[in-house]
Amino acid sequence: MADALVLHEDRCFDPDPATRRAARSLYEETRHLPIVAPHGHVDPRVLAENAPFAEPAALIVQPDHYILRMLYARGVPLEALGIPRRDGQPVESDPRKVWQLFAEHYFLFRGTPTGAWLEHELHEVFGIRRRLTEETAGPIYDEIVEKLGSPEFRPRALFERFNIEVLATTDKASDTLDWHRAIRDSGWRGKVIPCFRPDAVFKIAAPGWPAELDALGREHGAPLVDYAEFVRALEDRRTFFKRLGATATDHAVLEPYTTWLSPDDAEVLFQQARQGESSRADERRFEAHLLMEMARMSLEDGLVMQIHPGAFRDHNRSFSEQFGPDRGGDIPVATEFTRNLRPLLNAYGNDPRLTLVLFTLDESTYSRELAPLAGHYPAVRLGPPWWFHDSMLGMMRFRERTTETAGIYKTAGFNDDTRAFCSIPARHDLARRMDANFFGDLVARHVIEMDDARRMARALAYDLAKETYKL
Amino acid sequence: MADALVLHEDRCFDPDPATRRAARSLYEETRHLPIVAPHGHVDPRVLAENAPFAEPAALIVQPDHYILRMLYARGVPLEALGIPRRDGQPVESDPRKVWQLFAEHYFLFRGTPTGAWLEHELHEVFGIRRRLTEETAGPIYDEIVEKLGSPEFRPRALFERFNIEVLATTDKASDTLDWHRAIRDSGWRGKVIPCFRPDAVFKIAAPGWPAELDALGREHGAPLVDYAEFVRALEDRRTFFKRLGATATDHAVLEPYTTWLSPDDAEVLFQQARQGESSRADERRFEAHLLMEMARMSLEDGLVMQIHPGAFRDHNRSFSEQFGPDRGGDIPVATEFTRNLRPLLNAYGNDPRLTLVLFTLDESTYSRELAPLAGHYPAVRLGPPWWFHDSMLGMMRFRERTTETAGIYKTAGFNDDTRAFCSIPARHDLARRMDANFFGDLVARHVIEMDDARRMARALAYDLAKETYKL
Amino acid sequence: MADALVLHEDRCFDPDPATRRAARSLYEETRHLPIVAPHGHVDPRVLAENAPFAEPAALIVQPDHYILRMLYARGVPLEALGIPRRDGQPVESDPRKVWQLFAEHYFLFRGTPTGAWLEHELHEVFGIRRRLTEETAGPIYDEIVEKLGSPEFRPRALFERFNIEVLATTDKASDTLDWHRAIRDSGWRGKVIPCFRPDAVFKIAAPGWPAELDALGREHGAPLVDYAEFVRALEDRRTFFKRLGATATDHAVLEPYTTWLSPDDAEVLFQQARQGESSRADERRFEAHLLMEMARMSLEDGLVMQIHPGAFRDHNRSFSEQFGPDRGGDIPVATEFTRNLRPLLNAYGNDPRLTLVLFTLDESTYSRELAPLAGHYPAVRLGPPWWFHDSMLGMMRFRERTTETAGIYKTAGFNDDTRAFCSIPARHDLARRMDANFFGDLVARHVIEMDDARRMARALAYDLAKETYKL
Repeated sequence: MADALVLHEDRCFDPDPATRRAARSLYEETRHLPIVAPHGHVDPRVLAENAPFAEPAALIVQPDHYILRMLYARGVPLEALGIPRRDGQPVESDPRKVWQLFAEHYFLFRGTPTGAWLEHELHEVFGIRRRLTEETAGPIYDEIVEKLGSPEFRPRALFERFNIEVLATTDKASDTLDWHRAIRDSGWRGKVIPCFRPDAVFKIAAPGWPAELDALGREHGAPLVDYAEFVRALEDRRTFFKRLGATATDHAVLEPYTTWLSPDDAEVLFQQARQGESSRADERRFEAHLLMEMARMSLEDGLVMQIHPGAFRDHNRSFSEQFGPDRGGDIPVATEFTRNLRPLLNAYGNDPRLTLVLFTLDESTYSRELAPLAGHYPAVRLGPPWWFHDSMLGMMRFRERTTETAGIYKTAGFNDDTRAFCSIPARHDLARRMDANFFGDLVARHVIEMDDARRMARALAYDLAKETYKL
Repeated sequence: MADALVLHEDRCFDPDPATRRAARSLYEETRHLPIVAPHGHVDPRVLAENAPFAEPAALIVQPDHYILRMLYARGVPLEALGIPRRDGQPVESDPRKVWQLFAEHYFLFRGTPTGAWLEHELHEVFGIRRRLTEETAGPIYDEIVEKLGSPEFRPRALFERFNIEVLATTDKASDTLDWHRAIRDSGWRGKVIPCFRPDAVFKIAAPGWPAELDALGREHGAPLVDYAEFVRALEDRRTFFKRLGATATDHAVLEPYTTWLSPDDAEVLFQQARQGESSRADERRFEAHLLMEMARMSLEDGLVMQIHPGAFRDHNRSFSEQFGPDRGGDIPVATEFTRNLRPLLNAYGNDPRLTLVLFTLDESTYSRELAPLAGHYPAVRLGPPWWFHDSMLGMMRFRERTTETAGIYKTAGFNDDTRAFCSIPARHDLARRMDANFFGDLVARHVIEMDDARRMARALAYDLAKETYKL
Repeated sequence: MADALVLHEDRCFDPDPATRRAARSLYEETRHLPIVAPHGHVDPRVLAENAPFAEPAALIVQPDHYILRMLYARGVPLEALGIPRRDGQPVESDPRKVWQLFAEHYFLFRGTPTGAWLEHELHEVFGIRRRLTEETAGPIYDEIVEKLGSPEFRPRALFERFNIEVLATTDKASDTLDWHRAIRDSGWRGKVIPCFRPDAVFKIAAPGWPAELDALGREHGAPLVDYAEFVRALEDRRTFFKRLGATATDHAVLEPYTTWLSPDDAEVLFQQARQGESSRADERRFEAHLLMEMARMSLEDGLVMQIHPGAFRDHNRSFSEQFGPDRGGDIPVATEFTRNLRPLLNAYGNDPRLTLVLFTLDESTYSRELAPLAGHYPAVRLGPPWWFHDSMLGMMRFRERTTETAGIYKTAGFNDDTRAFCSIPARHDLARRMDANFFGDLVARHVIEMDDARRMARALAYDLAKETYKL
C-alpha cells in the first residue's frame, strides 16, 4: 500500500548482494547492543521529572533545528510553526496546525537524515504504520497523543525501552546540576551524566558574558575578581561535574586555535573583559589560551576533552534576533587543525592522560588533517561525523576518508548529539547500519575477514564510545 | 563491431541490477521531457539568422574550450586547430585538417564528459554510427557536412527537434539584444531569452572598462558621469532585458565577496575608475558593493540572481594574450561563501522576492557551506554542478553532498551552460541519467519509495528549473 | 581456517559482478607487467652491497613510518619498538620482542593500506600462510629469518624476482652517489638510478643549512661564496646526477609558492643565510625563487621536475627531537596551487621541454586545482595519490576526481614512494588493481569500451610512468 509506512529490514545497505549479505550479518551483531550516548543535548529535567511528553509538535517539530531550518528555507515562517518571537508578537499557538503544516511539507525531507530519523521514530517508538502526509497528519497526531498519555511513554520508560546504558547531557559551567542530582536521588537506575561545557564564560566579547561570569562566581561561591580565581572556579566546577558523573568537557569554537598566554596577558585580557572592553580578537586569544588550560586540567582530573569547531553561529542576524540561537541558522566555515592545534598537541598530545576528541563540519579535513593527527598523537580521537554530516552518506564519507589513515581504533564510536530524546534509537540505528555496511563492503572486497569485521563493528557500535569517554 | 559507435541504453547507470532497474525506470519518466535551458552561452544570432552551420571543425572543435584545453595540454598547438592568433600570424585554415587532428587525439577524451557529449551528439544529432578515429575522421566529416546542408539541420529545426522549451543566452549589459528582437520579430515560436550579465562594467581595474562603460552609456542614452547615473543605467538595462524576456542576471566573480559601501565611497571609487586609477582592491570592493545593488534591484524587478565565483580567468598570461579568453585557460581557486555572502544574505536572504542561485568550482564547499546556506536562507538555491564538475561523477558528488542537508527542492534543476548548441541534448541527457541513478540508488537502499523518486526525478529534470528561473 | 593468510584473487575489486568481471580481466593484462618505480626511497646501498637483510623487525617494522605512526598513536612507545633515541637512552634491543609487540597490535592495521601491503609482502615475498597474531608472531619471525638467509632473498635476487625494470632512489644534492656507481660498476644488470633532491640546501632558515651548504660546496669542488656559484653548483650536480642515470628532480615544500627574485635580492638572501640570519619568510621566498631556477634548468637538462607540497614536517616537536624525522610525525596542511604556481607556469608551463609532476596531500585540490592545471598546461602531469592517500580508497578518489577533467594521459602512472623494498610489489599490485577496478566500473557503466579500457589500464600500469619520467 502506497500509504504504508514500512521500515525495510535492509534500508541504507548497499544494494550489491555480497555487500548487503555481509552488512546484514554484521548489523545483526550490533543492532541490539545497549546505547552508549556520551554526547547529547537532552534536557535532564525530562528524566528528572519523568512527566508525560506534551504532544507531537512540541516533542518532534519545534525543538528540532534540522526541521525548522528546512521549512524556513522553503518559505515557511517560524511563526507559523509556533516558535516564539523575542519581540512578543503572536505566533501560532495550535499545535495541531503546526503538525499539519509540517506534514504538508514533509516531502522536503525525502532523502535526508531528518526523514530517516523521523520515520524510524514514528514506526519504532510510536508504532505508526502510515506515511505522514497532509491527509494522515491529523490521525497520526491523535495516535501519538494517545500513546504519550500512557505510562510506557514516560521518559524513563522510554529510556529503558531504548536500552540506553548511559546518556550524557551538556551543561553550562554555572549549572547547578540540580536535575542531575534529582535523578540520582530518585532511586531510578538510569545513568544520566552531565558534561562540562564552559563556552559561555570563555566568550568575553559576547554581550552576555558579564552575566555568565556572575553566574559562575555564584556557583563557585566567590567573586571572580581576577584570572587566577576564574581558573580556580573552572577547576572547582569540573570537580563538581565529575562528582555528578561527568567524564567529559565540550568546547565549541569558531576555529580550533590554541596558544599559551603569559599569566600577565591572561590577567590583562580578563580585566579588560570585566570592563566590557573586549574585542573579537581578544576573545579569540582568550579562548585559545583557555583551551590550553582545559587540556592541562584534563591531565589532572581525567575529563575527556571535546572540541567542536567550525560553526559560524547565528549567521542570519535578524533571524537570530527574533528567534534566538539553535533554530537552524548556523553555517559552517572552512577549518584548519594542523597549525591551530599544534601548541596544544605539542604540550599535551603525547600524554596518555589526555583524550582529545575532535569533530569537524569541514569534510575536507577528514583525510587531510584529522586522520593524520589521530594516526599520530596518542591523545587524539576522531569524533563521529557531526551535525550536517550525521547522515547515511556523511557517515560513509567519514569512514572512507579516515579509516585508511587512522584505522577505526582512533575513532570515538558514535554519539547522537541530539536534543530529540525520541530520536536517539533512530540515530544509533543509522550509525550501526552504516558501519555494518562499510565493513560489509570491505568483506565483499576481501580486504578484511568476516571475523575481524564482527569485532570492528562491535567496537564502533559500543566498545569505542565506552573506552574513549571512560564510561 | 569494434568500430561501431553505440550508445548503450544503460550508459552511466550503476551496474548493480537493483539500482539500474530503478534508474532505468526513473529515466524513462524524464528522458522525453522538454528541455528547459535557463543558463547558457549559445549565440542568439545563430537562431536569428537560422543559417546552416558551417562544418564540423567550426561547429564542434573550435568553439569548445573543453576540447581546446585538453588538446593543448597534450601538446597540440592551438594554431594547428585553426584558432586565430591576436598577432595575426597564420594558423591552420583547412577545417578538414583540424578535424583530422582532433580525431587523432580523440582517445584523450575517453572517460571524460567531453567524450560522452560528443558521442551523444554524433550519434543522436548527426546519426553517425562509427567511432571517431584517425581512419574514420574523413568520412565522418563528410557525413556531417552533408547533413548540415539539409533543412532539418538548420538551427531552428534542431531547436525544435531537441524539444527545447526555453533557451536563455548570456548577454552583456550594453548588448542591444538586436538578435533577440530579430527572433521575436521573425514569427518563429521558439522561446529564446536573454540573461543580464553586467560583469564587464563592474571590473573597474580592467583595461577595457572605459570602453565597456561608454557602451553602456550609449545604450542607456546618457553619459555615465556619476555613480547614481551608472546605477540608473543598470536599472534601466535590467528593465530592457526583462522586456525581452529575461528572467535572470548572472555574475562571475573571483570570490563572492559582498559589502555595502556608503554612497560617498561608491562615488569616489566610480570617479577614480573614470580617471583610470582603480586598483584590484578597489575593483574587489566595487564588485562586492554592486552585488548588493544587484540583489536590491532583484527585489524590485524580480530577476533571479546567479553568482558564479571561483574561476581565476586567463591564468596563462601569454596564452591568453595570443588566443583571447575562453580557450580553456581558466583555473579554479578555493572559494569561501559563508563569510563573503553574509552581508548580502543578511540584507536580502530572508526576502521571498529574491532568488539567488549559487554555483561553485570548489567541491569542498558543497557540504560545508552551500548546502547549509540553501538549507536555511529562503532566497538561496544551489545551481547544478558547473563546468569542470558538469560530468557523470561530478553530478554524483553534487547530489551526494548536498541532498542530505538541503534536499533537492532547494536546488535549481539542471542547466547546460554551453556555447555548443548541438551538445545541449547530450548534456541534459547525462544530467537526467545521473539524477535517475542517484534516486535509483536511494530506492535500492530503501531510503525513498519509487513513487517519491518519480516525482523527485521529474522535479530535477524539469519543474525546478522552471520554478527557480520563473519560466 | 580462520588462521590462514589468504590473498583472495579478487581482493579490492568492487563486489558488483559486472564491474568485477571487467576489473579482473583488465588486471590480468597488467599484473605481470614489469615494475617501473620512478620515485622512491630505497637505500641504494642495499643493492650495491647485496647483503642479506637482517631480520623482520629491522626489515619491516622499524623503517616504516606508517607502522610507527599507528602504534605510537595507540600508546606504544617508540622505545619499545627499538627506535633509537637521540639522547642515547636505552631502547628495546631484542628484535623478536619488537616483532611480537607489532603482532599484538596488528589488529590496528585492519582495513588500512599498511595491512594490505604487509599481507601481500608476507604471502607473496615470504610465502607465509598464517595470519600474523600474537600467537603466530614467533613462528612467522623464524620463517622469515630462515628465508632471509637464502640467496634467493638477497636484494638483487628479489629485485629480479619483483620484475623491476627501473628503480629510482632519492638523493641529496651533495650525495656522492658512490653506491649508485658501485651498482653500475658491479656488472649487475639491474637498473637503479638516482633522483636529485636539493631541499636541504634550499631551507636557509634550518639550523643544518650551513653544513648542507658546505657539503654541497665540497662535492662541487669550490666554496659557495655567492649566489651565482651556488646556482652553478646546482647545475653541475644536476649534470652529475644525470650522468649516473637520473631523469628527475624532487622538491618537498610546505607550499608550492613560486616567484622570481631579482639577482640582487637572491644574492642578499643568500648572504644573509650565510650569516645565519634567515627568517622563515626569507626561506619561503628563497625556495620560491629556487623552484623557478629548477624549472629553468629543467628546460636545459631535461630533468623531470617533481613538487611534493603540503606536509608540515615534524609537527610534534618533542617527538622529533627524540626520534628524528620520518617517524610518522608529519601532518598535512591545506595547499593552494592555482596562485602559487602561476609564476612558474607562466614562465615555463607552455614549454614542451618541461615536465612538472605535481603531488598533493590535500584531496580537495584534485578536482579544484590539479586536474584543471594538468588539463591545460602542457608541462603539468599529476603524480599518483601520495602517502596518506596511497590506498585503496585514496586511489579511487584520485581517479574519480581527476579523470573527467584531465583524462588519464596527463597523469604520471604509479610510483610507490617507499623505503620498504620488499613492499614494492604489494604497492604496485594495489595500484594496478584499483586502476583496473576504476576502468572496470566505466566499462560496466558503458562509458568506455573494453578495448579502450585495456589500453588505458596498461598506460597507467606501465607506459605513462616511462613516458613521464623519460625512462
